[in-house]
Amino acid sequence: MTTEAADAAIASLAGWSRQDEKWIAGSYRFAGFPAAIAFVARIAEIAEAMNHHPFIAIDYKKVTLRLTTWHAGGLTELDMQSAERYNEAYRTSIAGNR
Amino acid sequence: MTTEAADAAIASLAGWSRQDEKWIAGSYRFAGFPAAIAFVARIAEIAEAMNHHPFIAIDYKKVTLRLTTWHAGGLTELDMQSAERYNEAYRTSIAGNR
Repeated sequence: MTTEAADAAIASLAGWSRQDEKWIAGSYRFAGFPAAIAFVARIAEIAEAMNHHPFIAIDYKKVTLRLTTWHAGGLTELDMQSAERYNEAYRTSIAGNR
Repeated sequence: MTTEAADAAIASLAGWSRQDEKWIAGSYRFAGFPAAIAFVARIAEIAEAMNHHPFIAIDYKKVTLRLTTWHAGGLTELDMQSAERYNEAYRTSIAGNR
């Protein structure tokens, strides 16, 4: 996937941006640490089901995910589809907190 | 806590080292991604119980934890006690995998 194609795909992914040629990153904020951890558990389920695993950083109430496709040496549709699934999980998670 | 005291305390904490004056870090490796995520869930329970939260990075099968005490502006006994609890959780987790 070219960087232009990646930028076009990412334009519709709220909270995500391209870091460089090989990585995209997205951040999510939560009401508290337990909510952030519950979200990470959900992300892990999605990652296992897709057999595509993000790098995950948990900074108290903030979760940052980074994606690349190792075997392709850069960004692919799999990264974009994963980010879309994570955003969907976040919307559900936030709705569940209300 | 002085850096000398921190180094003395950390000497008995397998896998942990001092990063600078304010932070200690420890890494843990697992058989797979689900095991790494299960460990993070356990760490989160300990962190909530102690009301002291590490920075957590999950890089597939590897989990890295970083600790500091914000309100003290550096390292305290709370960081050392947390690291000891995390190591204990890791030993239990690994034993459970066998």
